[in-house]
Amino acid sequence: MSAQGDFIAGDWGTSHLRLFLCDARGAVRDSATGPGVAGSDGRCGEIFDSLASKWGEHLPAVLCGMVGSNIGWLQAPYAPCPATLADIAGRSASLRDGRIRIVPGLECRNHFDAPDFMRGEETQILGALALAPCLHQGRQLLCLPGTHSKWAVLNDGVVSEFLTAPTGELFNLLSTHSVLIRERGDLTEPAFCHGLAQFARFPAAQLLHRLFECRSRSLAGELVPRDAAAFLSGLLVASDIAGAVAALGPATTVYLIGSPNLTRLYADGLGHHGLGQSHTIDGSAAALAGLAQIRRQLVTHAN
Amino acid sequence: MSAQGDFIAGDWGTSHLRLFLCDARGAVRDSATGPGVAGSDGRCGEIFDSLASKWGEHLPAVLCGMVGSNIGWLQAPYAPCPATLADIAGRSASLRDGRIRIVPGLECRNHFDAPDFMRGEETQILGALALAPCLHQGRQLLCLPGTHSKWAVLNDGVVSEFLTAPTGELFNLLSTHSVLIRERGDLTEPAFCHGLAQFARFPAAQLLHRLFECRSRSLAGELVPRDAAAFLSGLLVASDIAGAVAALGPATTVYLIGSPNLTRLYADGLGHHGLGQSHTIDGSAAALAGLAQIRRQLVTHAN
Repeated sequence: MSAQGDFIAGDWGTSHLRLFLCDARGAVRDSATGPGVAGSDGRCGEIFDSLASKWGEHLPAVLCGMVGSNIGWLQAPYAPCPATLADIAGRSASLRDGRIRIVPGLECRNHFDAPDFMRGEETQILGALALAPCLHQGRQLLCLPGTHSKWAVLNDGVVSEFLTAPTGELFNLLSTHSVLIRERGDLTEPAFCHGLAQFARFPAAQLLHRLFECRSRSLAGELVPRDAAAFLSGLLVASDIAGAVAALGPATTVYLIGSPNLTRLYADGLGHHGLGQSHTIDGSAAALAGLAQIRRQLVTHAN
Repeated sequence: MSAQGDFIAGDWGTSHLRLFLCDARGAVRDSATGPGVAGSDGRCGEIFDSLASKWGEHLPAVLCGMVGSNIGWLQAPYAPCPATLADIAGRSASLRDGRIRIVPGLECRNHFDAPDFMRGEETQILGALALAPCLHQGRQLLCLPGTHSKWAVLNDGVVSEFLTAPTGELFNLLSTHSVLIRERGDLTEPAFCHGLAQFARFPAAQLLHRLFECRSRSLAGELVPRDAAAFLSGLLVASDIAGAVAALGPATTVYLIGSPNLTRLYADGLGHHGLGQSHTIDGSAAALAGLAQIRRQLVTHAN
């Protein structure tokens, strides 16, 4: 069912695989889903073939995410920053005579002089550059919220540095296992904004000295116990924003790339901090656009 | 086996009960241990009687800790700050015609305008005042490290305010459940000091943006994976010290009250931050001295 110029784009993370049959311009013609790398049991090749075979034999493919890690299909070593589209595409790892390419992650020495890594987000950043061309000009600040949120700085379209905050992981750990949260309710907007607002009153405070409020405000009757997790989420997002902007420097617009339920929280948080406007780009669309950019780069480079 | 003036002092926390037969001056004549409040199954009275009966009938007792919480023997409502020895003793809850007294916890509006609470630590603070009389003069800063670390400010011997940081709980959660720590090794001193030193290079940084280093430094070969937990401990203790001192203000000497394995970490941390000297007081000795102080206050007040 494939046509001349078609290729397969794959976003293969720890928990999910999303495969797309794309035409030469990157438009999606069909899609399929499968298990993440963590559930692939070392059989990434078989899983890929079983899903892709319906689209025909020997189609070229570009895959990003944990599929390129040491628990994936083939390890694609991290590319160093500063990194351009050409750098990232040029360092992709090859399988099956180069027909399948796996996108490398990025590494940098971050603001705190520590090694930092991303894998998968580099493709979303390349996609954001394609979807929002203004990102190619000057200094731009991007935030990709998630289990391990990434903040990235672009200079004239080049990824110059980034910084990781395990904001989502800390939220999950604390709301599941901590005595600070006795009851995990819905993430109600008012309680989330309460957490944002309380943190923003003392933006230089260490997060550690604000966490107990999830419990103490419940004990004191200032917070309904089932709202404690939403309040915690507000504290964490506010701490993430305050710390990242202090480290990397403010920006007129912060570009938020991710799932709508997460980017909405960060857009609220940026508003509360009075840190300028935000512009949201859907994370799945960004990944797909990034894979198409890399494919285009590889084709152009091969010719 | 008891003599005139003898009394029972009890430190009854969530996990442990330590009972002491003391003479009128507070010297220990005998001791016994039992289950904490969490393991008492609502039978605190029976447990107390079974342990204390060997010392004779109708001895007066003073008990502190979670025994006074809503999961303990009798709820002793929190006393407000500022609080003196007389305030705390005066608000103790009575059982068995006043023969058994349960020490109340403390509550305050902390530096971040949030409600804050302690239960058990107030008795250790009163004990520290007895063991280190210089604490009665001027402004003093105390730190009681633990699952939920407490930082307290004394003004002329009066507890004026305090601040809680769930430092120990966060360490346990992250080193047990997080993908940041793959292997939980011993808390080796060099790796702990590495964490302290790295945090201290950027003391105003948000903890969130330093946590990923537990993993990234291992990936980059800068940290042996089994040292990641000790490195994390260094980051957490440094963040606790930096945040508390920024909030409450520095002190020439910080008084550390707790178990030696914890106070040692904080003494190291204060040294790394160049925040002056520390003076350590054993937490168990402080609790016992505090119970004796409260007993003395109650006897004096009764006469």
